[in-house]
Amino acid sequence: MRRPRTVGRRSLHVATVSRREALLFEAGIKLGGVFHQYLGIPLSRRTSGGLARTIENAVRLQPYVRSVRVRIDPARGGPLGRGRFAYRYLTAEMLDVQVELADGPVSVTARLAHRRDLRYPLMRIVAASGSVGPRRRSSRRRAS
Amino acid sequence: MRRPRTVGRRSLHVATVSRREALLFEAGIKLGGVFHQYLGIPLSRRTSGGLARTIENAVRLQPYVRSVRVRIDPARGGPLGRGRFAYRYLTAEMLDVQVELADGPVSVTARLAHRRDLRYPLMRIVAASGSVGPRRRSSRRRAS
Amino acid sequence: MRRPRTVGRRSLHVATVSRREALLFEAGIKLGGVFHQYLGIPLSRRTSGGLARTIENAVRLQPYVRSVRVRIDPARGGPLGRGRFAYRYLTAEMLDVQVELADGPVSVTARLAHRRDLRYPLMRIVAASGSVGPRRRSSRRRAS
Amino acid sequence: MRRPRTVGRRSLHVATVSRREALLFEAGIKLGGVFHQYLGIPLSRRTSGGLARTIENAVRLQPYVRSVRVRIDPARGGPLGRGRFAYRYLTAEMLDVQVELADGPVSVTARLAHRRDLRYPLMRIVAASGSVGPRRRSSRRRAS
Repeated sequence: MRRPRTVGRRSLHVATVSRREALLFEAGIKLGGVFHQYLGIPLSRRTSGGLARTIENAVRLQPYVRSVRVRIDPARGGPLGRGRFAYRYLTAEMLDVQVELADGPVSVTARLAHRRDLRYPLMRIVAASGSVGPRRRSSRRRAS
Repeated sequence: MRRPRTVGRRSLHVATVSRREALLFEAGIKLGGVFHQYLGIPLSRRTSGGLARTIENAVRLQPYVRSVRVRIDPARGGPLGRGRFAYRYLTAEMLDVQVELADGPVSVTARLAHRRDLRYPLMRIVAASGSVGPRRRSSRRRAS
Repeated sequence: MRRPRTVGRRSLHVATVSRREALLFEAGIKLGGVFHQYLGIPLSRRTSGGLARTIENAVRLQPYVRSVRVRIDPARGGPLGRGRFAYRYLTAEMLDVQVELADGPVSVTARLAHRRDLRYPLMRIVAASGSVGPRRRSSRRRAS
Repeated sequence: MRRPRTVGRRSLHVATVSRREALLFEAGIKLGGVFHQYLGIPLSRRTSGGLARTIENAVRLQPYVRSVRVRIDPARGGPLGRGRFAYRYLTAEMLDVQVELADGPVSVTARLAHRRDLRYPLMRIVAASGSVGPRRRSSRRRAS
C-alpha cells in the first residue's frame, strides 16, 4: 500500500529506492566519472579555466544534474618544469568539483576535493534535501 | 535524540545520511569510475579476461566494496578488422559490471550494463538491504 | 664526421635520430594520447565543438606542436537514445584529429581518423617536410 | 626509381616515410596512449604487478610491437593515506614503460619514465636500428 518514492514514472532501478537514494547513486556516478575521465590532460594556467568549463558542460548533460561547478588549480601540481616542459597534466590534487542533482522536489549536493591530510581525493555528500529516508512520513503517521 | 545511522564512527559526509544512502553514493562512484577509466584499452578475445580481472582488483581496493564481477564481451564490439587491425578497443557495449558494497549489516548491489534498446550504458541499483530509509526503526517504535 | 641532425642543442633522445624522426615520434605521442584520453566524455551536438577546442588547447601545450585541428562528429555515434538518455559519449568513430609539429625548418603532419572499412582508428603520417632521412644530403654528395 | 622503404606492401601513410620513421611514429602512439589511458586506476603494492601485466598485454596487441615492459612503483606516489584510504591511484611518477617495435629487419625502442628533475613524464627514443634514414643504402650505393 505504501508507494515507492519514485512513483509517477517507472524507476530505472531494480531495487525499491527513494528518490533521494537514487539521486545519491547518480551523484556518485558523476563524481567517480570526472575523477577517472580527465586525469592526465595537459593544462596550463591559461587553459585550466576552459578545461573546467568543458568538464562542467559534459556533466550537465548527464541525468538529473541541476548545476555543477568545476575548479582546477594548476598550482596544486607543485613546481613547474622548464622550457618545453613548462606545462602540467591534470592531477587529482588540482580538482574540485561540486555537483547538485535534483529530481522533482528532492535534491542532493556532492563534492570531490583532494584532502591533503588524507592524501586522498575525497568524495562527499554535502547536502541532501529532506530528512533521512521517510522520516517525515513517519512523523505524519505518529501525528495522526 | 535519534542518532544518525552512521553513528559509532565519524561520517565522511557533511550531510546526515543513512548508511544505505552513503553506500549507494559509493556504488555510483565505483560504476561511474569504471565507465570513464577503461574505455579505449586495446583488447582481444584472449586478453579480455585478464583485463576484467584487473578492473575487479582495482575496484576491490575502493572503500566498502565487498565483491565485484566484471565481464567484457569483445564480440559486442561488432565485426573485427583484418591483419594488423584485428583487435579491438574496449567500448561501452562490451562492459558488464556488478558491484556489491557493505557497511556493517547494510549492503547494496549496483550494475552497469549497456542497454541496446536505450543505446545507453545503464547504471542501476539492483539490490539494497533493509527497507527504504529508517522504515524498520519506525516499525520498532510502533511495536513498542 | 656527419653530424646528427639534432646538433646545436642537446637531444632528448638516447639514440641518434634526425629531427624529422624525433618529430614523427612526437606526433605519435600526441595522437595516441588524444585517442586514449578522451573516449567516454559525455557530449551532444551542442557541446561537441567546445570539447574539440579544449582538446586542441591541450595538444597545443605539448612540445613541438605548431597547429592542431580536432573535429568531433556526434552523428557518427549512431542513433540517439531518448529522454534522459538523449546524449552521447565520445567514441572513436566521432574523432578526427590532425596535428602539425615543427622543429626549426622541419615539420610533419599526422592524422587520426576512424576508418569504417578497417573498423579501426587509423593514425597516419600525412606529410613530412624534406625527403626521407638524409636523402637530399646524399644526393648533394653524389652531385658534388 | 628509388623505392620507398615500405616496399613490398602498401604503406599506411600518405607521406613517403622510411620503415624506421614509421616505427618511431608507432612507438610514440604506444607511449602516448599508455600515459593517457591508465592514470587514475586504483592500485596497491599487491595489485600493481597485475596492472603492469595488463598494460603490457594491451600494448602487445598493437601493430609492430615486438616486446614491452611495464613497471609500476606505487611507492613513488608518496606517503600512503590511512584506513579506508590506504591505497593509491596510478600517477605519472609511478610509470616506467619500455616498448620495442619491429618491422622486418628494422627495430626501434622507446621509453616513458618520469623525470623528477624535469617534473615531467619523459618519452624518449632509446634505440633505433640502422643509421639515420637511408644511410646504409647510400653507403652501399657509394660502395658499388
